[in-house]
Amino acid sequence: MTTRTWTVTGMTCEHCVASVTEEISEIAGVSAVDVELATGAVTVTSAGPLAEADVRGAVEEAGYQLAG
Amino acid sequence: MTTRTWTVTGMTCEHCVASVTEEISEIAGVSAVDVELATGAVTVTSAGPLAEADVRGAVEEAGYQLAG
Repeated sequence: MTTRTWTVTGMTCEHCVASVTEEISEIAGVSAVDVELATGAVTVTSAGPLAEADVRGAVEEAGYQLAG
Repeated sequence: MTTRTWTVTGMTCEHCVASVTEEISEIAGVSAVDVELATGAVTVTSAGPLAEADVRGAVEEAGYQLAG
């Protein structure tokens, strides 16, 4: 089990949080996604380490940006 | 046909716009809803004048506030 926190920019409301959560949850192996709107911190728990490209793709699919 | 513009506060993104549009569209007689996110201007076209309480109720159901 791996837990890593990413930073997502551009989320302004709980609808944004829901979109990001939904897209990241669809990545294979992900078991939990916790988003803190105020800071953009997105903590993802998964069976193993995720490829940054997959996380970035999911975030962008939702309409936001992965920081860094 | 009646068109009136209301002001809604608290919308921060297009998801918010979609929620407000959806709720107001459900009021009987409403045929069009146009929301301008930047200003909060919500222009509603309906068969006849709407009760402010109905519009306020729809806006609050979506999670926002009717100004004034």
